[in-house]
Amino acid sequence: MGLKLADGLLAQELARVQGEVDAQFDALLPVPGDRRARLVEAMRYAVIGGGKRLRPLLTVATADLFGVDRETSVRAGCAVEAIHSYSLIHDDLPCMDDDAMRHGRETTHLAFDEATAVLAGDSLHALAFEILIDPAMSGDPFTRCELVECLARASGHAGMAGGQMMDMIAEEEGGEGFDLQAITRLQQLKTGALLGAAVEMGAILGKLAREGRAHLHAYSRDIGLAFQIADDLLDVEGDEAKAGKALRKDADAGKATFVSLMGADAARAQARALVDQAIGHLGSYGEEAELLREIARFIVERDR
Amino acid sequence: MGLKLADGLLAQELARVQGEVDAQFDALLPVPGDRRARLVEAMRYAVIGGGKRLRPLLTVATADLFGVDRETSVRAGCAVEAIHSYSLIHDDLPCMDDDAMRHGRETTHLAFDEATAVLAGDSLHALAFEILIDPAMSGDPFTRCELVECLARASGHAGMAGGQMMDMIAEEEGGEGFDLQAITRLQQLKTGALLGAAVEMGAILGKLAREGRAHLHAYSRDIGLAFQIADDLLDVEGDEAKAGKALRKDADAGKATFVSLMGADAARAQARALVDQAIGHLGSYGEEAELLREIARFIVERDR
Repeated sequence: MGLKLADGLLAQELARVQGEVDAQFDALLPVPGDRRARLVEAMRYAVIGGGKRLRPLLTVATADLFGVDRETSVRAGCAVEAIHSYSLIHDDLPCMDDDAMRHGRETTHLAFDEATAVLAGDSLHALAFEILIDPAMSGDPFTRCELVECLARASGHAGMAGGQMMDMIAEEEGGEGFDLQAITRLQQLKTGALLGAAVEMGAILGKLAREGRAHLHAYSRDIGLAFQIADDLLDVEGDEAKAGKALRKDADAGKATFVSLMGADAARAQARALVDQAIGHLGSYGEEAELLREIARFIVERDR
Repeated sequence: MGLKLADGLLAQELARVQGEVDAQFDALLPVPGDRRARLVEAMRYAVIGGGKRLRPLLTVATADLFGVDRETSVRAGCAVEAIHSYSLIHDDLPCMDDDAMRHGRETTHLAFDEATAVLAGDSLHALAFEILIDPAMSGDPFTRCELVECLARASGHAGMAGGQMMDMIAEEEGGEGFDLQAITRLQQLKTGALLGAAVEMGAILGKLAREGRAHLHAYSRDIGLAFQIADDLLDVEGDEAKAGKALRKDADAGKATFVSLMGADAARAQARALVDQAIGHLGSYGEEAELLREIARFIVERDR
């Protein structure tokens, strides 16, 4: 899959969760024998067999700290991934980023059509909440409520969608007026909010009280920023074939990014410092947090 | 507001719920002092000050049967309306129905831009679940779960979005292959599912057990179909100025509708029969269901 890190634990866990997420979506989305077939096929196309599955892995790895049943944490991870997938479908639309390639394949609106892509995104959005609210998710309604609350806030106008709006404006303004603080805020919403939700949902499943989540929140905030800096570096230095999508887009658009504002070397150093800091937040955990540490390291070393 | 029925109870209740829904969305959506402002302004544009508010009225009227606190039922009604509004924004996009007018004003993608409209729709979608899952909605997590489950199912691929897919295909096929049964199924998903959810959510708030909801389900199924037949009649016979949107679209597209399949007179008779049948399902209620009866009558008499 073009991952630089062939590290034992991480490579194995990524492959495992990829298989589990694919199987879960396959079971959730049988193609109906009526005229909704195209819609469900587009949902399947977007959500099965592509993507690193970083968000479900974060949910599973966090839930593992508390001994949560694996099927449960994979299921919750699929809800986060459904939100992530819907946002990619809509982001790739001609009226948004107008991208032709995603996960090394045609984007959904090219493989199907724009209207179907809009509806497939909308349907994956609803599916995320259908997954979380199903009694199969958790026998405890309070846990299901906490999961829905966490994911809805992270994905709406105060989270991911708000960050995407800021990102569109950053593009319009061509980098003017966006300093490091503004870019940090933008990215905390655009990518950080959902990565944070992926971690927090693991903690919710583990019945960790809200007050006890501060260190995990700090971990996810740091890896979220490191993730985005790495993304900006990939956009400048990466290999399109490995990334499976168009690169060099930010520079071509003259958009402010961590790299344009700090320079590549300082950005790389900053990403690594954030990863060290993220790992530091896990100090109260022992071996059981090794996967979360590996994920943090992977986030800045990946090539896609 | 161009309503034919100046009937006392209904006109008064519609006006009341319109004011309450507007006030609720105004409170839920303060415009932030950062670059998300355009997004929230687009959400407000789409969701405040337009629309009949039929869905919130259904939720409130059903909840009233069980003496549910009004603030609670209005809040739940706003969640249904947020879903309805997001679907209209996305439906009106150039890649979907390409509509220029809605509620007598420019559609959201014209008043703002396409990308903002996509994001505003997505954000209203998330907002619906943020509203329902907020502890302010209900102190009982089980009730909040039931509300989310009902609305997520009604709006996703097995509900509204699935119906919209069928509708797109009906347009592509130009009426060929869509008989009355297929159109009924299409409409049960496209408009019926959400109208049904509006009613069911009132019953959930009223703590009516699932087994006891059959007559309300039958009521909403019948008014849902009557609503769509009335819509098809409006498309043929209505006044664009009163409707606040473009009409004559189905006929121009050669699309199969209840009117094209049955003829206008038979369609009108069928809509009225469905209304009588819907009212019949409320037989176990007395005066407290008068508003639901009025809504059923209004649905076929409206001119927008």
